[in-house]
Amino acid sequence: MQSSKTAPGTHMPDALLLTNARLAYGNDELVDIALQDGRIASVGAALPTENLEVIDCGGRLVTPGLIDCHTHIIHGGDRTNEFEMRLEGANYQDIARAGGGIVSSVAATRALNPEELLAASLTRIDALLAEGVTTLEIKSGYGLSIVSELDMLRAARLLETRRPVRVKTTWLAAHTMPKDFDGSRDDYIRDVAIAGLKQAHEEGLVDAVDAFCESIAFSAEEIRPLFETARNLGLPVKLHTEQLTRSGGTSLAAEFGALSVDHFEYADDPEVQAIAASGTVAVLLPGAFYMLNEKQKPPVGALRKAGVPMALATDCNPGTSPVSSILTTMNMGAVLFGLTVRECLDAVTLNAARALGLENEIGVVAPGASADLAIWDAERPAQLVGRLGANLLHKRIFKGTVVHG
Amino acid sequence: MQSSKTAPGTHMPDALLLTNARLAYGNDELVDIALQDGRIASVGAALPTENLEVIDCGGRLVTPGLIDCHTHIIHGGDRTNEFEMRLEGANYQDIARAGGGIVSSVAATRALNPEELLAASLTRIDALLAEGVTTLEIKSGYGLSIVSELDMLRAARLLETRRPVRVKTTWLAAHTMPKDFDGSRDDYIRDVAIAGLKQAHEEGLVDAVDAFCESIAFSAEEIRPLFETARNLGLPVKLHTEQLTRSGGTSLAAEFGALSVDHFEYADDPEVQAIAASGTVAVLLPGAFYMLNEKQKPPVGALRKAGVPMALATDCNPGTSPVSSILTTMNMGAVLFGLTVRECLDAVTLNAARALGLENEIGVVAPGASADLAIWDAERPAQLVGRLGANLLHKRIFKGTVVHG
Ligand SMILES: [Zn+2]
Ligand SMILES: [Zn+2]
Repeated sequence: MQSSKTAPGTHMPDALLLTNARLAYGNDELVDIALQDGRIASVGAALPTENLEVIDCGGRLVTPGLIDCHTHIIHGGDRTNEFEMRLEGANYQDIARAGGGIVSSVAATRALNPEELLAASLTRIDALLAEGVTTLEIKSGYGLSIVSELDMLRAARLLETRRPVRVKTTWLAAHTMPKDFDGSRDDYIRDVAIAGLKQAHEEGLVDAVDAFCESIAFSAEEIRPLFETARNLGLPVKLHTEQLTRSGGTSLAAEFGALSVDHFEYADDPEVQAIAASGTVAVLLPGAFYMLNEKQKPPVGALRKAGVPMALATDCNPGTSPVSSILTTMNMGAVLFGLTVRECLDAVTLNAARALGLENEIGVVAPGASADLAIWDAERPAQLVGRLGANLLHKRIFKGTVVHG
Repeated sequence: MQSSKTAPGTHMPDALLLTNARLAYGNDELVDIALQDGRIASVGAALPTENLEVIDCGGRLVTPGLIDCHTHIIHGGDRTNEFEMRLEGANYQDIARAGGGIVSSVAATRALNPEELLAASLTRIDALLAEGVTTLEIKSGYGLSIVSELDMLRAARLLETRRPVRVKTTWLAAHTMPKDFDGSRDDYIRDVAIAGLKQAHEEGLVDAVDAFCESIAFSAEEIRPLFETARNLGLPVKLHTEQLTRSGGTSLAAEFGALSVDHFEYADDPEVQAIAASGTVAVLLPGAFYMLNEKQKPPVGALRKAGVPMALATDCNPGTSPVSSILTTMNMGAVLFGLTVRECLDAVTLNAARALGLENEIGVVAPGASADLAIWDAERPAQLVGRLGANLLHKRIFKGTVVHG
C-alpha cells in the first residue's frame, strides 16, 4: 500500500509546485500551490516555476491532508468474535463470561511491548493513510496500568518514525476502571491516571489529556483532579461525554477550556451554549453511533446555530467502532447526522485541526501551513463524501513530500 | 490496483495446490485445496503435491470468491451533486429543476458507447474486485431506449475481456419510463422493454430479465407481458419489489419462479411464504436502505424461519446506493438488518450464486465448483464482517489463477 517513497529519511525536495489544482469551494479557477521547506509558500494563479519540481494536478481537487482527531487505533487483540456472538443473541453477561468486552482488549494490550503494539495496529493505520490522512490522534486507554498506558503512547510516538504521518497523543488512563485495581475510582484516578500522567509528561509522551465521563465510567467530579493536573502541566484537555446519557461532563470540559467534547449525542442546548462560550470543538463519532444502533443523534442544528465547530473522527477502537475509514466516517456524518458536504470536509480538516490545537498549522490550504495535502481523482468534495467504497485518492503529500501515489 | 497477473491471456497453471487453508465454519483443521483446469479438484487433508504449484495459505481463511449479485455499476455520469443539494435542503423538485435525478443518469449513459461506458465504470468495478469479488451481476436500465440498453449490456460483456471476473447480465429496460417516450407504460413495455429484449437475446447479451415493480415505476400487471416474453425465450426473471411500498410484485415473481426478489423491505408473511414456495432468493440491499435513511427493515426473522435463502448485494448505482464495497455491504447486513456473520458470508457466496442461477458452479469451496477463491489475512469471517474500512484480502483466485495479490 505504501510506495517506496514512504520510507523515513526520504529526500525532501526543497520546493515543489502543484499546478492546475482545484480548491474545494473555490471560485472554480485552477490555482498553483508552491511548497517550500515543508510548508505551503503561496497559493495563487500561475506562480513562477523556476527551480521547482512541478506536479500538474490537471484540474484535480486538492484538499488539506485529512485529519482523524479521535482514535483508539493502537491496541492489542481483536473483538470481532463478540460482534458475531451479539448477532447470534448473546448478551453482555454471555460475552463477559466468554472473556470478552474491554477486559479482553486490556489483556491483549498489556501482553505487547510498544513495537508489538504498533505492529498489531499498522494495517488499520495504513488503511487511513491510504485515504489521505496526514494527521492522526491516538489515545491510550487499554493499558489501565501506568506501565501499559505508557507503552501505548510509546507505540504512538514510534509511528511517526515508521510512517509519514503526524501523530498527536492523548493520555486516556481514565477510560474505565481495570478489573484488577484494588481501590475506589478516586484511588484509581490518583494512583494511576494522575501518577502515570506525570511520568508520561516527563517522558514527552503526552499532547493532551482525555477521560470517559459516563455513568458506566467516571463522573465529572472524579475527573476534576485529573484535569487540574493537566492544567498544572500545561496540557490541554478533551472529554468523551454525553454519549450514552446526559452525563454532565460538558460543563467540566467547558470550565477547563477543553479542546473538544467527543460523542455529544445526549447534549442539549445548555451543553451547546457552554462549549460555544469556551471555544470547544464538538467531535462527532458516527461510526460508534452506527455500530451500536443508537437513535439519539448529536444536536447538529443547535451546534450549527451556535457556531460551534464540528469535527468528525473514526473513533477507531476494537469494540464499539472498529472503523478505519475516514471517508466512510464523512459519509456517515452526512447520511446519519445530516451534516452538509462542506461541513463534512471542514470536519476532517480545519475543525479537526482545531480539536487538536493545531489550527493554522494543518487543515488548511494557505500560506504558512504545513504542506500536508491530498490530491483526489475528483473535482468536488461531494464525490468524496457521497459514495461508499470508492477511494479516489490520487496522491498524498506530507510536509511537502509526495508520500503516496 | 490490479497486478500484472490480471491481464487477459495470462498463463493458467494446469494445477495449483493451496495448503494450510482455513475454511469458514469448518472444524478448525487446516485443509489443502487442489485446483485443476480452472476447477476445484479436491478439498482435504494433506493432498499429494506432485506436479503442483503450491501456495501455502499459512492458516489463512479461504472463502469462495465473493459474488455481488445485484448492481447497476455500469452507467455514465455522477450524481453526488444531488447528494450535496439534498443535504443543503433541496427537495425533489429543486433537484429535477437542476437537471438531476435518474434523467441525468439516462442522458449521461446515452452519450457513451460501450467502450466509454465501461471506462467510466472501471474505478467502481476495480474497488469491488480488490475486495475479493469474482462474480458480478450488471443490469441495464439507464439507457431506456433499445440502442442504449443494448450498449449497456455490451459494455457489461466487454468487462469479461478486460478484467478477470465473471459477469452475469440482466435486462432492466423496465426500470422507469423515460421522459421522452411518447406513449403509455404498456406501450413502453411492448415497444422498448420487450422488443429490445428480443434483440438483446439474439445478440447473446442477456442472462436474466428484471423490472422495477413500484408505485413510482411499473405495476405487476404491466410487467407480466415482459416476464412472459422472458419465459418464451428461456430466460430467468428477477424483480425489484416491495422496496418503498408493499407493491405486490412478489406474487408475480413467485408465479414465474423468479431467481430473486430484490429489496423486499415492505414484504410481509404472505410474500415470504410465496417465495419460500417458489424457491426464490431474497436479495437484501442495505446500501440503499442506509443512504435513503429508511426505517422499514426487510423481514429477516420471517425469511430465516421460512428457510428462504438471503443474499446481500451492493445495488451499486449513481442515485440511491453509490456503494462499491461488498465488505461494507456485509457489515450493513449485520448491523442494520441483524443478519448473523455466517448469514452475511452465505449471502455473498452460496445464496448470491443461487440468485444468479449458478448454485454449485460458484459460491462454494467444493470439488467440481469453479476455482474462484478469496484468501484473507484473517482466521474467521467475523473479521471480514465486523469491521469497516479494513480490506483484509490477501489473494484473489479466478478460475484457478491468482489474479490479485
Ligand atoms: Zn473514543
Ligand atoms: Zn437495484
